[in-house]
Amino acid sequence: MTTIRAVEVHDVRFPTADTGDGSDAINRGDYSATYVELRTDGDLTGAGFTFTNGRGNEITCAAVEALSRHVTGRTLAEIAAEPVAFWRSLTADPQLRWLGPEKGVIHMATGALVNAVWDLRAKAAGVPLWRLLAEMPTDELVANVDFHHITDALTPDDAAAILDNGQKGYAERLALVEREGFPSYTTSVGWLGYPDDKVRALTRAAYAEGWRAMKMKVGGDLEDDVRRARIIRDEIGPDALLMMDANQVWDVDQAIAAMARLAEVDPYWIEEPTHADDVLGHARVQRAVAPIRVATGEVAANRVIFKQLLQADAIGVMQIDACRVGGVNEVLAELLLAAKFGVPVCPHAGGVGLCELVQHLAFFDFLRVGTALEGRMVEYVDHLHEHFVDPVRTSGGRYLLPTAPGYSATMKPESVERFSFPDGPVWR
Amino acid sequence: MTTIRAVEVHDVRFPTADTGDGSDAINRGDYSATYVELRTDGDLTGAGFTFTNGRGNEITCAAVEALSRHVTGRTLAEIAAEPVAFWRSLTADPQLRWLGPEKGVIHMATGALVNAVWDLRAKAAGVPLWRLLAEMPTDELVANVDFHHITDALTPDDAAAILDNGQKGYAERLALVEREGFPSYTTSVGWLGYPDDKVRALTRAAYAEGWRAMKMKVGGDLEDDVRRARIIRDEIGPDALLMMDANQVWDVDQAIAAMARLAEVDPYWIEEPTHADDVLGHARVQRAVAPIRVATGEVAANRVIFKQLLQADAIGVMQIDACRVGGVNEVLAELLLAAKFGVPVCPHAGGVGLCELVQHLAFFDFLRVGTALEGRMVEYVDHLHEHFVDPVRTSGGRYLLPTAPGYSATMKPESVERFSFPDGPVWR
Repeated sequence: MTTIRAVEVHDVRFPTADTGDGSDAINRGDYSATYVELRTDGDLTGAGFTFTNGRGNEITCAAVEALSRHVTGRTLAEIAAEPVAFWRSLTADPQLRWLGPEKGVIHMATGALVNAVWDLRAKAAGVPLWRLLAEMPTDELVANVDFHHITDALTPDDAAAILDNGQKGYAERLALVEREGFPSYTTSVGWLGYPDDKVRALTRAAYAEGWRAMKMKVGGDLEDDVRRARIIRDEIGPDALLMMDANQVWDVDQAIAAMARLAEVDPYWIEEPTHADDVLGHARVQRAVAPIRVATGEVAANRVIFKQLLQADAIGVMQIDACRVGGVNEVLAELLLAAKFGVPVCPHAGGVGLCELVQHLAFFDFLRVGTALEGRMVEYVDHLHEHFVDPVRTSGGRYLLPTAPGYSATMKPESVERFSFPDGPVWR
Repeated sequence: MTTIRAVEVHDVRFPTADTGDGSDAINRGDYSATYVELRTDGDLTGAGFTFTNGRGNEITCAAVEALSRHVTGRTLAEIAAEPVAFWRSLTADPQLRWLGPEKGVIHMATGALVNAVWDLRAKAAGVPLWRLLAEMPTDELVANVDFHHITDALTPDDAAAILDNGQKGYAERLALVEREGFPSYTTSVGWLGYPDDKVRALTRAAYAEGWRAMKMKVGGDLEDDVRRARIIRDEIGPDALLMMDANQVWDVDQAIAAMARLAEVDPYWIEEPTHADDVLGHARVQRAVAPIRVATGEVAANRVIFKQLLQADAIGVMQIDACRVGGVNEVLAELLLAAKFGVPVCPHAGGVGLCELVQHLAFFDFLRVGTALEGRMVEYVDHLHEHFVDPVRTSGGRYLLPTAPGYSATMKPESVERFSFPDGPVWR
C-alpha cells in the first residue's frame, strides 16, 4: 500500500522569452512549470505540473502548498476507491474554493497535484497512463468523473455507454496506433515573433519532415497575418492543413471580419478567436465562419465551460489542456462530453511538457472514447523535451505510443535544479 | 502630483469560521482580506482589498506582489490620463495573464490594487468615490472602461448615451438619496449554520428594525430549506421580500426541481442556482422558474461572463461584486451593460468590507447609470464593520450616503495589526 508522505513543489522556469518562441498576440514569457513531486513511503515518486508563463509561477506554487494538505497522508488505495471524494477535497475546499471556483490559479494548482497522483497510480500499476485508463473497467472509469454541474449534458449512464462502446474494436485500434502512432500538427513554424524568412524556412523544413498540418499565430496587424499565411500556404500547397490561432485578441465582430479576410488561404480552423470565457461569442463566430471550424480550450477554465461550448454548437474542434483544469479526472469528463456531442478533440500542447502529457490523453481518447482518428491531431511544439525523463517521440508528423510506466511527467533532476527560480544556476 | 511610491500588502484574517456566520452550501471559512495600501510621496494613502475566505489569502497576497510592479512609480495624473492603459498593464500582463485570464486569484488581486488606486483618486479629489464617479464628465467616465471583448454588447457610444442620460435629473436623485438613503436587504438571518430558533429570532428582530427584504441560504437538505423558509415567511408576512441563495450547489435540473418545491413561500429571487460559469444553465433555470428572478454575480469572473448572462436573458437581477473582478473600472463596464439590457443591479456584500465598497457603486449606479430605485437593493450583513475607519451606516433597512473622501476601504491600523496572519496577536 503506497502512502503519499510529502508534497514537494519546485518553481522551474526556462528563459525562453528572448527567443520569440511562444510569442503570440497575448502571451510572451519564460515557459515555466509549477512542478510537483509526491514522495511516498515506497520507491515511487509521482510527478505532475502545471504550465505557466514565467512571472507568477510562484503564485501557483503557493496554491499547490495550500492544497497539499488534501494529498499528504493519503494512500493510493483510498484515492482509487473514492476518486471523486478525493478530487472534491481539492476543488470544493470550503475556504479555497472562493479563489476560483474551479478556475485560474487554484484550479491549475489542483491540476498539478491531481496529475502527479495519476502519474503515481500509473507507475504503481507499472503501465503508461494511457493504458491504465484505456483498459480500466467502465464502472471504475465512470467513478473517476465528477458529474457535478454537467448532468444536464452528460450523465453517468451516458458515460458508461460511451466507455462500453469503446471496448469494441479496442485491440484493432491499439494495433493501429502501435504501428502508426497518432496524427499531429506543428506550431513551431509561425510564432508572431518570427520574421517572414524564418517562417518560410521553418515551414519548408517541417513539410520536408513529413508534417501536413501547421498552425500559425494571427491577431497582430491583419495585413501581416495575411502575408505570413500566404507564405505558409505557398510552401505547403493546397492539400496540407493550415490552422490559425488568435489567442483571444479579437472582439467577436472583429474576429468575424478578420476571418472573412483570411479565408482566402483556406484555414482549417481558427483557434481562440475571442475571449476564452465567451461561449456565446464563440457560437456567433462559428456560425459566421463555417465551414472554417472554431477551436478553443487551452484556456477553458473547466468542464462547465466545455459543456456550454458544446451545448451552444460553438466549436468544431475541442482543445483540451492537461494542466489548465483539475487534472486527469476533469479531462475524462471533457473527453466524454466531446464524444457525447460528436466533436473531435485536438489537445493543446507546447509550453513545458504539455506534449508529454496530452499524448496519453489523445491515445486514451482514441482507444476508448472517441474511437476515431478522423479530424484528430495533437499539437506539437519542438522545445524543452530534453528536460523530461520520458520525452515524446515523433516520426513523420506523428506521435509514437509512450511505453514507460506513468504520465511522462517526470523532469530530469538536473533540469529541475538548474532552472529552479530564483536560486538555480541559470537564474542566479 | 501624487506618485505611488510603494505597495504594501497585508494578509488579514478574522476568525469567523467557528460561529457559523457566513456558512452556506459551499463556503465556510475565516472571512479574510488581501489588504493593500498604496504609499505615496504625499500625505495620502490609498486603501483597497479583495475578500477571501481564510486559507489561501496568502495566494492572493502573492498575486498582488506580482502585479504591484505595474503600480509602483505611477502618478495619479498619468493613471487618470490613460486609465485603460493602466488597467490593461495589470489584466493583460503578457506573463501573468496566463494565470487567469481575468479570473480567479490574479483578477481578484488586480481588483485589490485597482480599488486602492480609486480610493486614492477619490481622496486626492477630496470626495467620496460615488461622487467622483457620478459627477465625472461622460467622456472621462467612458475612458475608464475597457470595452475589449464586450463591444458586441456595449460600445463606447452606447456607454456615452447612458451616462449623458444619467445627467438628467441628477440633482433630484441626489436629494432623494441624501434624504432617504438606498434600499437594502439583510442576509444576517438565514445562514445554513444557524438552528431554526436562531433563524426565527433573527428574522423577528430584523423585521422590527425595519428590514422588509431578507435572504436565506438554501441548497442543503431540501426539506430543511422548506422548513426554514416557512419560518422566515411566517415572521415577515406576505408582503416583505424573501430571497434565496444556493451558492452554486445545484445542477441545472436539480435547481429547477428545488425551486418548484420552494415556490410555495413566494421567493423573490433565487441566487446562484448553479455553477457560476454556467451562462446557459442559468438561462434554462430562469426560463423555468419565472416569475421568480435568477440572480447571480458575486462569483462571476469578469465583464465577459456578465455580458453573456445579459445576452442570454439568464438573469433578472445582476449582482456585482466590488472585489471579484478587476476593481472599479470593470464594475463600470458591468453597470453600463446592465443598464443597456435593462436589468437591475443589486450588489453583493458581506464578507470583509464589501458593504463599505458596494454602497459607493450602488449610489453611483442610481445617480448616473441605472437612474431608478425600483428593484434595486444592496445586500447588508452585520459583521466586521467595526474594523473600518469609515464604516457603513444604515437606518431602517437603508444605507446612508457616505460622506468621507475615498472608497471607505481603509481599515483601522489596530485591526490590521491585530488580525494579521500568521503573526498578529489573534493568530499567534
